[in-house]
Amino acid sequence: ARPRVGYFYTGKTGSELLTEKIKKYKVQEYHSVPIVVQESASVYDAISTMFLEDVGTLSIIDENSCLTGVVSRKDLLRAAIGNQDLSALPVHIIMTRMPNITVCRKEDFIIDVAKQLINKQIDGLPVVKDTPNGLEVIGRITKTTITKVFVELITDNQI
Amino acid sequence: ARPRVGYFYTGKTGSELLTEKIKKYKVQEYHSVPIVVQESASVYDAISTMFLEDVGTLSIIDENSCLTGVVSRKDLLRAAIGNQDLSALPVHIIMTRMPNITVCRKEDFIIDVAKQLINKQIDGLPVVKDTPNGLEVIGRITKTTITKVFVELITDNQI
Repeated sequence: ARPRVGYFYTGKTGSELLTEKIKKYKVQEYHSVPIVVQESASVYDAISTMFLEDVGTLSIIDENSCLTGVVSRKDLLRAAIGNQDLSALPVHIIMTRMPNITVCRKEDFIIDVAKQLINKQIDGLPVVKDTPNGLEVIGRITKTTITKVFVELITDNQI
Repeated sequence: ARPRVGYFYTGKTGSELLTEKIKKYKVQEYHSVPIVVQESASVYDAISTMFLEDVGTLSIIDENSCLTGVVSRKDLLRAAIGNQDLSALPVHIIMTRMPNITVCRKEDFIIDVAKQLINKQIDGLPVVKDTPNGLEVIGRITKTTITKVFVELITDNQI
């Protein structure tokens, strides 16, 4: 018999194998830390947190630290141009609430999160963990994360 | 002599070839339409345009339609929480001005734009064309564009 060395044809090209590899990238390897605000906090406090942490989306949590909503820069800008006292307006009034929030879990695939960001026209998703009290926020995935994965992918396979 | 058929070893693997292909993606194939506002417009008008067009960054132009600045949602949010009359405040007061703006041109590579977005922590770049009067804005590239390229890449090479 011929020795089993050299190339074997697996029926897949190298670029298919690379794509297959990328399709297996999971949320847990790439997500950022969560940035959360209590739902009783004011819109003014939420805006301050957004600037301090330099993020585009905040997760809003209840007294059990469970996810109840999200606010984006767009939501905060909309509130800021309304003639309201932002330090007297609780953030839960203007947030997008559960169950109208798209979330992901650490075992989800990056490619599926990227598709959701595009289809739902949002900038980021909270990464959550199921607990008896509700969803605990453990991270976030944004278009920035996806852009970083894209750059890393090309740079790691540099010629 | 043996016939020249079958596989030839080019010294590159399939995944290197795919990466090489992605590295050649150019701005001109992927950029979106430009969203511009005159520098004499008010901050209030800029915010309205941002909501109407649903974009994160606006290019600001002079009377010759040439780029003089950019404003982000963050800039507009900062202005909105200051105690100012937004309809009396011209957008050129709060914008980031030339030459402190990162731009790209249609023949630039997508991967280089993606690196700039990450390194400079910005959401998007204006795509410009050089003219005798200055830089004409012909499009924009954002983290949304990069996320779409990423999704397309995986979907087109589907197993």
